[in-house]
Amino acid sequence: MIYLTRRESFSASHQLFNPKFSEKENFEIYGKCAYPHGHGHNYDIEVTVVGEPDKDTGMILDLKKLSEIIEKEILDKVDHKHLNIDVNFLNGILPTAENLCVVFWKILAPKISAGKLYSIKVFETPNNYSEYRGE
Amino acid sequence: MIYLTRRESFSASHQLFNPKFSEKENFEIYGKCAYPHGHGHNYDIEVTVVGEPDKDTGMILDLKKLSEIIEKEILDKVDHKHLNIDVNFLNGILPTAENLCVVFWKILAPKISAGKLYSIKVFETPNNYSEYRGE
Amino acid sequence: MIYLTRRESFSASHQLFNPKFSEKENFEIYGKCAYPHGHGHNYDIEVTVVGEPDKDTGMILDLKKLSEIIEKEILDKVDHKHLNIDVNFLNGILPTAENLCVVFWKILAPKISAGKLYSIKVFETPNNYSEYRGE
Amino acid sequence: MIYLTRRESFSASHQLFNPKFSEKENFEIYGKCAYPHGHGHNYDIEVTVVGEPDKDTGMILDLKKLSEIIEKEILDKVDHKHLNIDVNFLNGILPTAENLCVVFWKILAPKISAGKLYSIKVFETPNNYSEYRGE
Amino acid sequence: MIYLTRRESFSASHQLFNPKFSEKENFEIYGKCAYPHGHGHNYDIEVTVVGEPDKDTGMILDLKKLSEIIEKEILDKVDHKHLNIDVNFLNGILPTAENLCVVFWKILAPKISAGKLYSIKVFETPNNYSEYRGE
Amino acid sequence: MIYLTRRESFSASHQLFNPKFSEKENFEIYGKCAYPHGHGHNYDIEVTVVGEPDKDTGMILDLKKLSEIIEKEILDKVDHKHLNIDVNFLNGILPTAENLCVVFWKILAPKISAGKLYSIKVFETPNNYSEYRGE
Repeated sequence: MIYLTRRESFSASHQLFNPKFSEKENFEIYGKCAYPHGHGHNYDIEVTVVGEPDKDTGMILDLKKLSEIIEKEILDKVDHKHLNIDVNFLNGILPTAENLCVVFWKILAPKISAGKLYSIKVFETPNNYSEYRGE
Repeated sequence: MIYLTRRESFSASHQLFNPKFSEKENFEIYGKCAYPHGHGHNYDIEVTVVGEPDKDTGMILDLKKLSEIIEKEILDKVDHKHLNIDVNFLNGILPTAENLCVVFWKILAPKISAGKLYSIKVFETPNNYSEYRGE
Repeated sequence: MIYLTRRESFSASHQLFNPKFSEKENFEIYGKCAYPHGHGHNYDIEVTVVGEPDKDTGMILDLKKLSEIIEKEILDKVDHKHLNIDVNFLNGILPTAENLCVVFWKILAPKISAGKLYSIKVFETPNNYSEYRGE
Repeated sequence: MIYLTRRESFSASHQLFNPKFSEKENFEIYGKCAYPHGHGHNYDIEVTVVGEPDKDTGMILDLKKLSEIIEKEILDKVDHKHLNIDVNFLNGILPTAENLCVVFWKILAPKISAGKLYSIKVFETPNNYSEYRGE
Repeated sequence: MIYLTRRESFSASHQLFNPKFSEKENFEIYGKCAYPHGHGHNYDIEVTVVGEPDKDTGMILDLKKLSEIIEKEILDKVDHKHLNIDVNFLNGILPTAENLCVVFWKILAPKISAGKLYSIKVFETPNNYSEYRGE
Repeated sequence: MIYLTRRESFSASHQLFNPKFSEKENFEIYGKCAYPHGHGHNYDIEVTVVGEPDKDTGMILDLKKLSEIIEKEILDKVDHKHLNIDVNFLNGILPTAENLCVVFWKILAPKISAGKLYSIKVFETPNNYSEYRGE
């Protein structure tokens, strides 16, 4: 079994603010991330697929095709967007790094045609990141 | 003469859209950067001071103090903010990386107490950055 | 289950030298790391917590609070220090990257208030690092 | 149990082209990677060993010795070489990142004298990498 | 005046070997870089343009357009190629990092439609790079 | 004219404390850097040489030879050492990044056999660095 990873990037803005909480509670929970006009990140995502390399091609799946799937299903919809407002598949979902991992997993898992999805990592910054393995 | 550099980071959102232009023109000029709800970056800034190290301290100025100046004058005002809306000193200024360099220079130059400001670099991403040297 | 990681840094010096061994043995075992006046690193540490995001907040725990815990419990005690001499919780422990992982784990595990500690990584350099998962 | 990792680099060229396929099929499968004169990468490899640190040395094994093993067994044979032509142990093996992981594992696993090999990662670029854990 | 930089990447192979020299001389001059089947790198290039930002757009030139120029004029011709064999504009030119800078400058300088070209950097590895400023 | 750069690394400890000042003054000037047992860094140095590439070799000087010069003249003397105690050429010199640049320049400038030394950069951390250009 080989774990094969592709890393991609996008730039987006988001705000962490849950209307179920009061404004005061939101600032207690999310601090600066609750500011009303949002802020942004250069997000990196790492998508890892696990499988056995094909005997003839030496590959699990073509990383260029994996890259195209990520671009079509995720990047085209989130890049240069406001994650709380502009993205259909994030409707009603607070765009924390934790939640983004899970949403991206649900979108990508059925699109992986060879091997299977093993892990999604979402980096908000090089120092803050979140991983989901479908468990 | 020694060139001494301190690198700092902040996360912010912005939108490139000039009301002097039509919507069509804005999208021609700025592409995805003109989307109405903005997008964001992990910005890095590098502030370089030039001067002669003091004979006794071996330093031009204390990098920790330089870091505090940058934090007080810049980071506290832009971090986790929307650059088009939330920042007084960017009022009426389109927040391109080019313009940010110049604005940051004007703020920081008079605050450097030893040596003098040599360069401000603003990185929108590791692949896109802008530098101003006060010329 | 989500794995959430925070990366922090500190600068410290250390020496690898065990008084149980002769000087000759120490140099055979530790090479340049046994030099008598020590050497140093910019250490990076990655602390990973595993848990289920809270339905309402979308977070396992606040990364900013995790960062404050790491700062109070670890960084304040090791940053700009000599690990063999200045750090109470390293008394009698040879400060290899392997041992630092385990010591940091013991300190941090009981402080994690939501989710639970999954992994501690200690990077001596970008090319040399050690991980402990509590097993 | 501690996981200890050493990262090393080499520069090499390779071509992805399987003579079992027609030229047209090769370009469909491998795209630009099938160009006849090959292309190249700065490869990074991460070798992770798992074990219990020795009570007296505080180490699983000496990273400097691990580095020397990797250099002698792998780097001396692949650095500045064409992986399809110049490397005996890759004879008849298509040098995809997936296959390189497995080959490097087979070479290194019997050479690890303390602890045991846990993982080999091969990075073709910072955005494309492959991992094998011997399973 | 603002200095605006765009960073791009490509993967290629090359060989440092001058037929004017004997084989022995080539190995004395170029060491491992003279191996007959070549080796490769993930090359990074940084293209810096200098100019005054337009009052209305806040930009010297659109980095996305600069990126497209670099892609069309350089990357499409060198990516996944053997620099000694496959690239018309490198015919008869030894592909050292020094020479690549100068050749890329000659190609790009006349294509920069706003501001003017200030510097080309070519990184063979993160530790080895070359810069040309047209002087 | 081409600017050619080689980056190297070393790990060392140092202390910023000038016996001309009182202990109180030292802590006011240097903060945590004045702690008595020192602290350490993974230092990076970048050495840039400027010159015209030789018509036949396509090189200013061989980067591998430049690397060997840096290793022999600098790294062998500072790596895994305490900069205040163990290094002859730093005798009586406070090892700030500013001073290290100048000292390394004086050592390396006369050893550069082709082209001439243009710049020395010393990075204490990725966020703090100092440059000297011999002016």
